[in-house]
Amino acid sequence: MTLSIPTSPACGGGRREGAADATLAQHLFAPKSVAIVGQSNDATKTAGRPLKFLRQAGYAGRIYPVNARRDEVLGERAYPSLAALPEVPEHVYVVANTEATIEAIEECGRLGVPVVTALANGFAEVGAEGHARETRLREIVATTKTRIVGPSSLGVVDLRHKTFLTANAAFDEKDLPVGRIFAASHSGGMIGTFLSRGKARGIGFAALVSVGNEADLSIGEICASTLDDPGIDGYVLFLETMRKASALRAFALEAAKRGKPVMAYKLGRSEAARSLAVSHTGALAGEDDIADVFLAECGIARVHTLEGLIEGFPMVARVPALPRGAKRGAVAVVTTTAGGAATVVDPLSVRGVKVEQPSAETLARLKASTGVDVAPARIVDMTLTGTQYDAMKAALGVLTSAPEFDMVVAVIGSSARFYPDLAVKPIIDSAGAQKPIAALLVPEAPDALKRLSAAGIPNFHTPEACADAIAAALGRREPRVIAGPHPNPAPFRGREKQLAVRMLDELEAYALLDKLGVAHAPSVALDVNATKVPSLPFSYSVAVKALSAEIAHKSDVGGVILNVRDDAALLAATKQIAQSTKAPRVLVQPMTQGLGEVLIGYRVDADVGPLVMVAAGGVLAEIYRDRSLRLAPVDLATAHEMIGEVAALKALAGYRGKPPGDLDALANALAALSQLAVMDGPAVAEAEVNPLMVRAKGQGVVAVDALVRMM
Amino acid sequence: MTLSIPTSPACGGGRREGAADATLAQHLFAPKSVAIVGQSNDATKTAGRPLKFLRQAGYAGRIYPVNARRDEVLGERAYPSLAALPEVPEHVYVVANTEATIEAIEECGRLGVPVVTALANGFAEVGAEGHARETRLREIVATTKTRIVGPSSLGVVDLRHKTFLTANAAFDEKDLPVGRIFAASHSGGMIGTFLSRGKARGIGFAALVSVGNEADLSIGEICASTLDDPGIDGYVLFLETMRKASALRAFALEAAKRGKPVMAYKLGRSEAARSLAVSHTGALAGEDDIADVFLAECGIARVHTLEGLIEGFPMVARVPALPRGAKRGAVAVVTTTAGGAATVVDPLSVRGVKVEQPSAETLARLKASTGVDVAPARIVDMTLTGTQYDAMKAALGVLTSAPEFDMVVAVIGSSARFYPDLAVKPIIDSAGAQKPIAALLVPEAPDALKRLSAAGIPNFHTPEACADAIAAALGRREPRVIAGPHPNPAPFRGREKQLAVRMLDELEAYALLDKLGVAHAPSVALDVNATKVPSLPFSYSVAVKALSAEIAHKSDVGGVILNVRDDAALLAATKQIAQSTKAPRVLVQPMTQGLGEVLIGYRVDADVGPLVMVAAGGVLAEIYRDRSLRLAPVDLATAHEMIGEVAALKALAGYRGKPPGDLDALANALAALSQLAVMDGPAVAEAEVNPLMVRAKGQGVVAVDALVRMM
Repeated sequence: MTLSIPTSPACGGGRREGAADATLAQHLFAPKSVAIVGQSNDATKTAGRPLKFLRQAGYAGRIYPVNARRDEVLGERAYPSLAALPEVPEHVYVVANTEATIEAIEECGRLGVPVVTALANGFAEVGAEGHARETRLREIVATTKTRIVGPSSLGVVDLRHKTFLTANAAFDEKDLPVGRIFAASHSGGMIGTFLSRGKARGIGFAALVSVGNEADLSIGEICASTLDDPGIDGYVLFLETMRKASALRAFALEAAKRGKPVMAYKLGRSEAARSLAVSHTGALAGEDDIADVFLAECGIARVHTLEGLIEGFPMVARVPALPRGAKRGAVAVVTTTAGGAATVVDPLSVRGVKVEQPSAETLARLKASTGVDVAPARIVDMTLTGTQYDAMKAALGVLTSAPEFDMVVAVIGSSARFYPDLAVKPIIDSAGAQKPIAALLVPEAPDALKRLSAAGIPNFHTPEACADAIAAALGRREPRVIAGPHPNPAPFRGREKQLAVRMLDELEAYALLDKLGVAHAPSVALDVNATKVPSLPFSYSVAVKALSAEIAHKSDVGGVILNVRDDAALLAATKQIAQSTKAPRVLVQPMTQGLGEVLIGYRVDADVGPLVMVAAGGVLAEIYRDRSLRLAPVDLATAHEMIGEVAALKALAGYRGKPPGDLDALANALAALSQLAVMDGPAVAEAEVNPLMVRAKGQGVVAVDALVRMM
Repeated sequence: MTLSIPTSPACGGGRREGAADATLAQHLFAPKSVAIVGQSNDATKTAGRPLKFLRQAGYAGRIYPVNARRDEVLGERAYPSLAALPEVPEHVYVVANTEATIEAIEECGRLGVPVVTALANGFAEVGAEGHARETRLREIVATTKTRIVGPSSLGVVDLRHKTFLTANAAFDEKDLPVGRIFAASHSGGMIGTFLSRGKARGIGFAALVSVGNEADLSIGEICASTLDDPGIDGYVLFLETMRKASALRAFALEAAKRGKPVMAYKLGRSEAARSLAVSHTGALAGEDDIADVFLAECGIARVHTLEGLIEGFPMVARVPALPRGAKRGAVAVVTTTAGGAATVVDPLSVRGVKVEQPSAETLARLKASTGVDVAPARIVDMTLTGTQYDAMKAALGVLTSAPEFDMVVAVIGSSARFYPDLAVKPIIDSAGAQKPIAALLVPEAPDALKRLSAAGIPNFHTPEACADAIAAALGRREPRVIAGPHPNPAPFRGREKQLAVRMLDELEAYALLDKLGVAHAPSVALDVNATKVPSLPFSYSVAVKALSAEIAHKSDVGGVILNVRDDAALLAATKQIAQSTKAPRVLVQPMTQGLGEVLIGYRVDADVGPLVMVAAGGVLAEIYRDRSLRLAPVDLATAHEMIGEVAALKALAGYRGKPPGDLDALANALAALSQLAVMDGPAVAEAEVNPLMVRAKGQGVVAVDALVRMM
């Protein structure tokens, strides 16, 4: 027998991110041959599971157990090494210890194994020594044809091809439903959770992958490889980190082009969970609101409940992503149990989904079709008709064709438990309606839920997951196409410490603003030893500020004196600032008034790359964290959208009879600042204008302070 | 056979709210005889269910079906009327139509039936006609010995006594677990949801009641009647409204005295759900943050998820209410699946529960007891030990005895599905630990959940319900005992329209503040026709304001001119204000400075009675709804607690080096204003000081405007 040489084009570099890669996907999920390195003879041990699961599932390819110390494992022939195999396997799962894992991966590289998945811990999550190990893995990838999943991967499973390359105990199960959803997770345990919770609900998966540390293949690359798989309708992701966000974004944009929805649950909504992600995965988790903006701008529907992720895909898949700038209509709620229905109206409204009462015309149509005189209320209460098929079917028909609604939620009471077939039949028979229908069953009604799943109707066991999935589905927008050559954020990771290296002083910062086209206050520099004030191009009163690249926060160190009224006072202020701050120069500016103070900022995040932000100025904005973020650059429409998201800026939009501020000029300044992301020249790490004074409508905005750090 | 006269002392008035009433409870839940008026011969119809369910459950008392048109129903003798029965039944369930229901209740009154429960709709929820019907019911209660549950009640069930007086289809079920929880709901359908979801999880109830419109007996009174029932450990409530809040509070305070916890889910977290509560129950739902404060001050643990309500009682019952002023420790999370555990850390942290890493000492004890070198992190990750009983048992022992933790959450992975007994045994065997343990099972693992329930261990199927119940349990405080004779809020309901009848002008309002001891700016009234300024007890600059009880918002109508610098300007300002506002007088005050502006307010809510509030002044506070509420009156400690809850007031507490404001004086003013709740004299409906200027520490606070409405 000769070694068969795989024809995989997979290699470490040069591929376009986000591209579908059918060959990689085939090696990952439908390999013709697999080897398990470190396969144990004890099927109850973690390292004993893969062979057991593969055989149990009926994997049809060739399986090569590798065990250096035994000739036989679980009754099958074992090979002493990968090199001793009769062929180069397409996918190797290494379930050995850390050191043996590195050796096995080196051997994979030598032999030209296309894909190796590694279970072992002991890499980036354990500090410097582990980082060195992960660097070694990346060297193998860079110098051979081998791609790596993991380390810390609980494995790769394809239920269609019976590829059970996993050590996750949850896969020790029969009769697993095969579906059309692809699941990927940073947490290895979670693929088992998808499986068991999905099975209980009749929700099946096509494939599941635990991506581990992503030393090589990232969650985005692995998902992208399957993009042209016709058996996959879309993706659910369990994220612990924004590591390799660029690949995730590239994948999401390609998925959007193909109409394959992506939804995600991400850990880290709180401080506690953030530091946890660090301890658990070794990754620096992105700050959660950055992650939130990033996912939204990638067109990924984010859910906030675990069951919302597992139950929610059919809902998200049923609602096309909203084109940017478009708005959603309302949700109709129809029920046979008004109190139960109210439990979903509440969390829907809290999540910002409009639940509205039918129009007069729709109410009239409801009465004509159902014979029920439905009360004009946010809940269409069909309680009086009980569980009558015809009335509910007719009501669903009317509501799914009413122009005011984008979606209908049917909330079913006790009948779903006792007459599962009857209770959900009107919903199942309405599956072809113009608008999507979600079903929430208020009692414990597992059979009815399964029937709905089988019919492809999004169905939910808790009002909270129902509302979560609906909000995620309705909130999902088409990805924002970002103008210009968007810089790859990857180079920024690990360079955080360099970011503070070179600060600009305020005059240099204004020069940058000039280049961007952001107006600033006229400024004159004055040496602290000056004994005479030069002719100023503006009149008193003036502000005097320390001018030094060494001082980031001038006010905190006595570096700002306001309302200076004449030459003598200006010279005195200059001396005083020199004493307090040791600054060599001061900057003199006219006192500037505005209707309000705003902060606009730009920074390069180590995970997701350039970001732009707008927030109200002042101490309260900091207390309330009232701000809007986007990936940079942004156009004017997006800048206006951002301004609309900052609650405090309502006060500048003519709130309660106050004069409106020049929000057009603010949007211009924001869009201009965001151009730093694509501007030629030395790269800016961080740029903040605080405050930017917003004047009355038509009178523009003026920067009166600016802070810039170069990379 | 002679009529047996019941000995019930129940009557419409005069009883002390919140008192246990064993006789009422016996008639409600353990009647020796029942009648069903309107019992149908068709068991599939709503009106056919009660007799079927009573027989199916094996109710041991005497059952009298009443049907005016049939001699026999479901094979049993039917009586033509209540008067025709051989005895006065202890509990009558009327399942007839609206008109027949009123007649039947009238007959109950004449016969001296102690308790009648009414199913029919068509009362207060349908407008004026229905209100008149409900008034008729209250007349019957006032003039007879009959008490009423409902109308719109789906019934009263006691699983211990097999009292299945219900038309809720969910009770058509056998093998219902009998437990020690009492469930009460405004929504009738929800008692069925408790039942079926509870059964699936091994969670049983002692009794369940659908309270309907509460025309007579309120949810608070019904619960209170059972307070001395030794078979009831505590209460779970599904609330749609704060109607009859006084009785609910009285009950909750008595329950707290007996150590019987009360938990509640309340609809109306959003605007949408509020208006919904109106349409659904006919009740004016209280604004949600008022409800939130009310429940907290009653010592009721509020949950925000439906499953949190159903699964959460054992958790709430295991954590004693926190004495006021005391603080909770942290929560420890221990797991065999770190990613799964992170899903509960996230919502716990979002809800403000501290999840912390073990102290160095605890980590050392963990290593010594388990043999595992646990990483110092917020999650105690036992993954390496797999599902080993000894290690998990030892870890639970260490964590439940660690002083830094108040509670331990054990998050169990796949093993819970495949080896339910093994996976949860260490938790079950730790049930007697010093601190409570909650179990979250990440996979679908119904058997393991049931085992935990049987052992009395709080257990959860979703991270969100787990976090919700834990936050509710840890957040539950002892009820606040409110000083002085707290006015019964009941008289206020329905008087909202009268509340605006008489406003005080600003001078009169200051007189009220003088009485309360709240400092205000010195003020001089001036006739708008004055041609000369009297001698002012303060110097210029001054503020000039329209002085009229007719003008609630002076600034909005040009009634305020600031920074007036001399007599001439003052006279001019007076004329100008007279022109703009038609006010007969103006008020002159010195311009007053402060470090910050605060709003303090008092108002009588129609549901819960007097309330006191503090918020930051200005437009942003309104945008952010950043405020703290309490039932009035409050003492100084509570006033300080309130101030601590307003985020914007951090700016007055020395935030970021700013000079601190006089928060002691602010607390004094807040406590003083709240005394309106117990002050003799004409009743104040609403009193607002806005702004109250807060000066530097030690320099007090000064009211510079005040608005008072009398009842």
